[in-house]
Amino acid sequence: MSTHTLDHEAGLSRRSLLGRGLALGGAAALGPGTAAVAAEPGNPANLPPNVPEWSKTLGDGVAVRAYGKPSKHEAHVIRRDVEWLTASRESSVSFTPLHELDGIITPNGLCFERHHSGIAELDPNDYRLMIHGLVDKPLMFTLQDLERLPRTNRVYFAECAANSGMEWRGAQMNACQFTHGMIHNVMYTGVPLRVLLEEAGLKTNAKWLLLEGADSAAMTRSLPLQKALDDCLIAFRMNGERLRPENGYPVRICVPGWEANMWVKWLRRIEVGDQPWHHREETSKYTDLLENGKARRFTYVMDAKSVITSPSPQTPFRHGRGFTVVSGIAWSGRGKVARVDVTLDGGRNWRTARIDGPVFDKSMVRFYAEFDWDGRELFLQSRAMDETGYVQPTKDELRKVRGVNSVYHNNGIQTWRVSPEGEVENVEIA
Amino acid sequence: MSTHTLDHEAGLSRRSLLGRGLALGGAAALGPGTAAVAAEPGNPANLPPNVPEWSKTLGDGVAVRAYGKPSKHEAHVIRRDVEWLTASRESSVSFTPLHELDGIITPNGLCFERHHSGIAELDPNDYRLMIHGLVDKPLMFTLQDLERLPRTNRVYFAECAANSGMEWRGAQMNACQFTHGMIHNVMYTGVPLRVLLEEAGLKTNAKWLLLEGADSAAMTRSLPLQKALDDCLIAFRMNGERLRPENGYPVRICVPGWEANMWVKWLRRIEVGDQPWHHREETSKYTDLLENGKARRFTYVMDAKSVITSPSPQTPFRHGRGFTVVSGIAWSGRGKVARVDVTLDGGRNWRTARIDGPVFDKSMVRFYAEFDWDGRELFLQSRAMDETGYVQPTKDELRKVRGVNSVYHNNGIQTWRVSPEGEVENVEIA
Repeated sequence: MSTHTLDHEAGLSRRSLLGRGLALGGAAALGPGTAAVAAEPGNPANLPPNVPEWSKTLGDGVAVRAYGKPSKHEAHVIRRDVEWLTASRESSVSFTPLHELDGIITPNGLCFERHHSGIAELDPNDYRLMIHGLVDKPLMFTLQDLERLPRTNRVYFAECAANSGMEWRGAQMNACQFTHGMIHNVMYTGVPLRVLLEEAGLKTNAKWLLLEGADSAAMTRSLPLQKALDDCLIAFRMNGERLRPENGYPVRICVPGWEANMWVKWLRRIEVGDQPWHHREETSKYTDLLENGKARRFTYVMDAKSVITSPSPQTPFRHGRGFTVVSGIAWSGRGKVARVDVTLDGGRNWRTARIDGPVFDKSMVRFYAEFDWDGRELFLQSRAMDETGYVQPTKDELRKVRGVNSVYHNNGIQTWRVSPEGEVENVEIA
Repeated sequence: MSTHTLDHEAGLSRRSLLGRGLALGGAAALGPGTAAVAAEPGNPANLPPNVPEWSKTLGDGVAVRAYGKPSKHEAHVIRRDVEWLTASRESSVSFTPLHELDGIITPNGLCFERHHSGIAELDPNDYRLMIHGLVDKPLMFTLQDLERLPRTNRVYFAECAANSGMEWRGAQMNACQFTHGMIHNVMYTGVPLRVLLEEAGLKTNAKWLLLEGADSAAMTRSLPLQKALDDCLIAFRMNGERLRPENGYPVRICVPGWEANMWVKWLRRIEVGDQPWHHREETSKYTDLLENGKARRFTYVMDAKSVITSPSPQTPFRHGRGFTVVSGIAWSGRGKVARVDVTLDGGRNWRTARIDGPVFDKSMVRFYAEFDWDGRELFLQSRAMDETGYVQPTKDELRKVRGVNSVYHNNGIQTWRVSPEGEVENVEIA
């Protein structure tokens, strides 16, 4: 197909994408007969072929689906767990289907889950948040009290520290959903934690906070006061509506850029102290065992990371050669993503990807890279850089520093091998 | 309660919100006894009173809710229709529960619906988009073809031209959901229409497009070519996931800032012509009958508008006097919202509201106004201004120009009367 030029507006002229190998999958380019019919404006006979039955009859009316659901043809787009990974579903994880999403908003129904004792089902009328310890005035808030304080809206990613944790010892999980799906990106509405602490009044020796959830595991984490006063939110909404039960309804804390284990759900208690509590989730768990037998602790920040979500093992190339869109996500716990690079050949040649859509602090960005696929084997990778200058490392670079005993904080570069048939596989390259 | 000062960090000092009349609704300020217990860091006995049963047992595990739903306590947060408004639900409208939302993202399950023949249920494998008429090369696209073209992510509002249409003759609907709920705000992913038209190649006399839906009403609208080449999107995702069936699955067109009737759903055909088609939806409907018997036509742009979503008739003040948050939304079809003003006394005194969260082109913004309510009757209003300098008019100002025979394009200032008891009513003031 030859390159054509639009003659009605000079600015539109450019090389045709179809000319770059995009063979149309449907009826392709239509014949001259169709063009002739089109000369009769408004002719209702101008229909694509095979008009199906649904296009001739009435469908469901409004509000029949008072709270809407996805199409029945999208039933495969769900959170999934891995049966062998954990002993029970009550203390386990489900994964966001990143390979089926685009843009930067994770729909609430698809946000990954991580529970220690299952989903606590709170009645919002029973909800109380207690603030006590090293404060001038211990306080108790109802949900309604929280909604009377000045609130803010922020888009943040929440990533489990164990995301990609199964990949420390090599390529394990053959699905983007399972290698990278412990992350979601949501617009939260909530009250800055700083406002609540100001109301309670901090004692001069206040340095740490204990956050406690109302689930039967009574999840606790120690939070440095400095972070609490910086950007933490006491959140009661996600993407406009109330938090979902599995995400902490009615109230969770957002600890932007830091590991999601600290984003305590069903938050019921904040105790102010002068040192960390050294509870389970910051000693035997969420610490990184190094080769020398010592462990890194309080490794809160989620470093810059990225992954190509499509193509990936669950969404291979089905279209053959030609013009092709690669889509992926990048994020950094230290600020804004500044740049994303993509390689087709396992890191020999890099090109700068196109970041498209909003770029917020400590939020996912969406990137794309378009290219002409000649049908050769590809080794696709992406590499994120953030505004601090930090560059996402290779997995081997990470292993040199951290060994392979860790579960957490694997932000190494992901490689997808694309076969000439378009199948995609999780691999590591030397 | 007296104002207090935080002494550990000078920057935190300020007047207490609690001191400004926020009486806590729960156990209020805790007694000294609780503070004493708090001196034992990590004591698991430090629990708020009345720890309920759910807090002691296991809940549902992960992926039990593979596609998540809201809490059972939020069952009232749904799209609603008005039975007497239309003859059938297949050609009707349901309304977004704006009064129950915050931030700027409308969750997909709550986006208002407007159908002319019910919800078309497409199989994405059957989907075809035809482009023909005054083009060099008529084309047919499958969904997969569209996904091979460069795509973009944009947040836009879609507002039905008839939103607030029942208010032309005075305050009618006593609910924000029904006065203003024919709007949603979503992050769309799609291919610029310009890219498809470039591929087809426009003839020199091309000036208008006919957009046609695949529903059995075969919804059609004429679109000026200039807008098509500017910012229209052929969208296949909303808030990250596939479009919902009721919003045009698998493909609709976004016509940013213009009346949502033009955002044809289940888009199957684009015909290029040299003049508008004058079909039903741009002649007998979606035209504005003036006092002199003439009608405005092709009134595409949705002018700047705003509304206070809380408090409103469905979400009255339940908390009594004291520190209070007013929350609302504003938008403009001509660009970005530049400022929102709020009045408590029906327009005698205005204050600038706090816009919080992202400000995008042709997107909703969220605004807040905080104040101490002394329990007196209020006449709450908001007034949007956009970056072109346009100021949202009063309803009476609008009526002077347009009369009261119109159904469409009522962007007048909304008044909520708040009674001393906190009840809220839709009123008009002279």
